[in-house]
Amino acid sequence: MANGDLTPTQPADLSAAPTRERILDAALEVFADKGFHAARMDEIVDQSKTSKGAIYFHFPNKERLFLALVDQFADLLERRVLDAIRPQNAGMDRVRVAVETCLDTFSKYRRPAKVLLVQAVGLGAAFEEKRSAINDRFASLIAIYLDEAVRLGEIAPVDVEVISLAWMGAIYALVIRWVTTGEPTPNRIVAALVPALLRSVGYEQPRREAA
Amino acid sequence: MANGDLTPTQPADLSAAPTRERILDAALEVFADKGFHAARMDEIVDQSKTSKGAIYFHFPNKERLFLALVDQFADLLERRVLDAIRPQNAGMDRVRVAVETCLDTFSKYRRPAKVLLVQAVGLGAAFEEKRSAINDRFASLIAIYLDEAVRLGEIAPVDVEVISLAWMGAIYALVIRWVTTGEPTPNRIVAALVPALLRSVGYEQPRREAA
Repeated sequence: MANGDLTPTQPADLSAAPTRERILDAALEVFADKGFHAARMDEIVDQSKTSKGAIYFHFPNKERLFLALVDQFADLLERRVLDAIRPQNAGMDRVRVAVETCLDTFSKYRRPAKVLLVQAVGLGAAFEEKRSAINDRFASLIAIYLDEAVRLGEIAPVDVEVISLAWMGAIYALVIRWVTTGEPTPNRIVAALVPALLRSVGYEQPRREAA
Repeated sequence: MANGDLTPTQPADLSAAPTRERILDAALEVFADKGFHAARMDEIVDQSKTSKGAIYFHFPNKERLFLALVDQFADLLERRVLDAIRPQNAGMDRVRVAVETCLDTFSKYRRPAKVLLVQAVGLGAAFEEKRSAINDRFASLIAIYLDEAVRLGEIAPVDVEVISLAWMGAIYALVIRWVTTGEPTPNRIVAALVPALLRSVGYEQPRREAA
């Protein structure tokens, strides 16, 4: 069954993985060129050099293909954030690095980010549900590190749920603005937003070791 | 022409205003009961006790009617914010009152807020454009008062564009969460978010005079 198999990190079996990834890569290209609505499954078949059968085996329709790309991007983002956090000390260092890595990932992958965030509007409720689930996943991640920072006494107790949702809202608003208009640039966003978020929980950054 | 006439504060002529408002009130009721997709223009005609002709004179289709409700709510929100700000001193007091009034308005008008924010997903690009325009309008308002606070020396210079977009993103994320799930409550949002936003620009609230 391809139905539940939307996470590229857990392919149904190893031999299927390359085909599935080829299809996802091709779909991203076609969506970027034509837009979600104009894109046709046939074009994705051609571009991926797979077969109609292979595509429909993995993705029953164009919408599912698009949502699988969104999941793929969310997985990439999460992997990059977790990798960046690992060498950091517990507490606010992790919070800071998580936010910086998140913004950095969008900046490095602007093309897929734009396709996935801007064209998604056409999908309505299906995308909104997905977006909301991914948002919650990252808000929970932020909440974990904020709780940690409170426990370590680096920041005073705060309403971690409200703050983590607020942070995700702030990050999302700026990323969406940047991918659609090109402004403010990621550098400017990081420079202004990261200190603002840290200050919002009463944390003054001691020293930046590296950008 | 009904085409450009989406702002309830500027009706085409005085005699048309009551009908237009009756239609908008009825539409809100029907959308709240049935949802945007299931709602039919005929039901709105019945509910408003006007005529099909009157409705189509003001609103060429259901989508325009919905977007007019969104504008009506945005106008209400802006009016309430500006009224609340007027008696305040320039600077951070205005910023604080603007954010509090915004959250308070959503809390007082939960039903329309829910209809307009949650059902809007079905409208796709048309709503997204509207939402983005309204978001910009309020971000600009916040930016004006932040600039003022910087000029008065109440806060250190910040990237006002980034900060005002971030604040709107944070507020929107929490309002959407609350209208869809009932949590966090508006009181909890105000209690946690307002101080966090003020701290994010390095401002520590001196004393709360009133809630």
